[in-house]
Amino acid sequence: MTRFASIADLRAACLDLPRGHAAKAAAVASRESMLTKPPRSLGRLEEVVEWLGLWQGRNPPRLDKVEILVFAGNHGVTAQGVSAYPAEVTAQMVRNFAAGGAAINQLARIAGAELRVIALDLDRPTEDFTFAPALDEAAFLEAVSSGYDAVLPDADLLVLGEMGIGNTTAAAALCLALFGGQAEDWVGPGTGVAGEALRRKIETVRIGVDRHRAVLDDPLQVLAALGGEELAAICGAILAGRMGRIPVLLDGYTCTAAAAVLHALDPRALDHCLVAHRSAEPAHAALCARLEKKPLLDLGMRLGEATGAALAVSLLKAACACLDGMATFSGAGVSGPA
Amino acid sequence: MTRFASIADLRAACLDLPRGHAAKAAAVASRESMLTKPPRSLGRLEEVVEWLGLWQGRNPPRLDKVEILVFAGNHGVTAQGVSAYPAEVTAQMVRNFAAGGAAINQLARIAGAELRVIALDLDRPTEDFTFAPALDEAAFLEAVSSGYDAVLPDADLLVLGEMGIGNTTAAAALCLALFGGQAEDWVGPGTGVAGEALRRKIETVRIGVDRHRAVLDDPLQVLAALGGEELAAICGAILAGRMGRIPVLLDGYTCTAAAAVLHALDPRALDHCLVAHRSAEPAHAALCARLEKKPLLDLGMRLGEATGAALAVSLLKAACACLDGMATFSGAGVSGPA
Repeated sequence: MTRFASIADLRAACLDLPRGHAAKAAAVASRESMLTKPPRSLGRLEEVVEWLGLWQGRNPPRLDKVEILVFAGNHGVTAQGVSAYPAEVTAQMVRNFAAGGAAINQLARIAGAELRVIALDLDRPTEDFTFAPALDEAAFLEAVSSGYDAVLPDADLLVLGEMGIGNTTAAAALCLALFGGQAEDWVGPGTGVAGEALRRKIETVRIGVDRHRAVLDDPLQVLAALGGEELAAICGAILAGRMGRIPVLLDGYTCTAAAAVLHALDPRALDHCLVAHRSAEPAHAALCARLEKKPLLDLGMRLGEATGAALAVSLLKAACACLDGMATFSGAGVSGPA
Repeated sequence: MTRFASIADLRAACLDLPRGHAAKAAAVASRESMLTKPPRSLGRLEEVVEWLGLWQGRNPPRLDKVEILVFAGNHGVTAQGVSAYPAEVTAQMVRNFAAGGAAINQLARIAGAELRVIALDLDRPTEDFTFAPALDEAAFLEAVSSGYDAVLPDADLLVLGEMGIGNTTAAAALCLALFGGQAEDWVGPGTGVAGEALRRKIETVRIGVDRHRAVLDDPLQVLAALGGEELAAICGAILAGRMGRIPVLLDGYTCTAAAAVLHALDPRALDHCLVAHRSAEPAHAALCARLEKKPLLDLGMRLGEATGAALAVSLLKAACACLDGMATFSGAGVSGPA
């Protein structure tokens, strides 16, 4: 028995979203305006602290409990030769996460965040979406529920990422299905494919989206047909974050593509989410533009694992520290504008 | 008796710069290539960790002792009505720094860095550069020496910033003098001037640079004539960093404009410096382009005080943590590319 009994049940949840606490965001903005700095001179740090206040319903917001969730899944479409790495790397990397040896382990520690890695049926890859839906309804709902149920209700901030050999192919297929255009608009090198392999990846995405053209008007069925368990879980976690009014940081291309499914259902569905960084995966910029999200960081990263999002946590903590610790003009005896 | 006996003596120091440890940078890059991630997938984090290794001469580099220096100075040119705030705010903000109430206090704490604020003769502003050189040779050399001597030789990273009502006017004048163009190309709102005050600021910069046209071919005399004590001190600190092979993070527009003086003397003079963030001050992007520097962050900040640079410290620490803590492909039993 999963949390969602059917796709219709899940859709209903996706269309009944709570809003933020506008009064708390206004209170944060009001305090910001009194602090010893020219108005708005902290730029996006001021934006993000208001956004945290909006969703947490707290002034000042706090980031004591930051939770990083990395979902891992395997993809039948790797049989098409779309990745630079063999599919067994997904499970090997999950062991590397457990042993503390991956990039996200270091970045979570630096961010002062708790890291949990949730491996989703790695020994049972999705179907190759060029032949069949990646996930049937039961497996899809189970994956969404896994993501939903992984979110702890007392988190101050949720940071989402993924690991899954082949999943930038799934992400590109989702984007093509949701936004249209040509397959090459949405396909990039991922972990590093080029030349013939890149052409194969483009063709795989084109064929996959064409095969599932009957469901393209239903974003959730698109996710089941072309996504993967980790992408479905990310959608579930974003939804749980929204229900619990927990702000969410999204990582790179694959994570944002999963989020785009919710946005296709309701353009306000990602109001509690920030895209933490712009991935080097070329299509991420266009995807962020479609979602009207401006990434906080742009460091040429393309590793996944929530690494870009984990890096952005320190910016959010800095924003909170400024709001919390700065003196006001009157308190510090500093003159205002002449 | 200052560290530099004359401008000629200072110039000689600026033209005799040590290089980095190329072999250590190569060793860092070699280790990076073995870590459990696709090659170069950490983007600029990999660049900066190699840069830290290059200048520290260490593999892995370390960031145990990060030193933030904020230099404060007062500017006679404020008599022209170029700032949104009265000149006494410089001293008021220095007291606010001492009391821990400014943005940089919070950001230094978050960055795990030591903050020192060095107030330079606040009760003796520079001359108004539209009438006379801002600093005579003795005062100029004293300010440069103050900056140079403030740098502790055992710092792992030096983070530089400034506070000084009127100093974006000085920065714009420096840029116009060093790079040419029109005054309006280099003048922006600073703390928030607009309309008539902005036009006055532009005209002030134009008149100032024209008044000192006789020295425009000598970057150090340009700095003395149009800069200020905190800008001169920043040059001194950058130079001390280079001599001690300490990597340097530069803050926004004013800080970068001071650094441009050294670049004008020797285009390699800032190889040990990164521009930490792109300021919202419009001319900062053009200035960075002239120096061939790509800022790490772009968050619409325009506060000075080393705030943008302090924020970037956490990115550098993250880069070091990845290099230091990540497993290698062979150590973790992860397969390489298929």
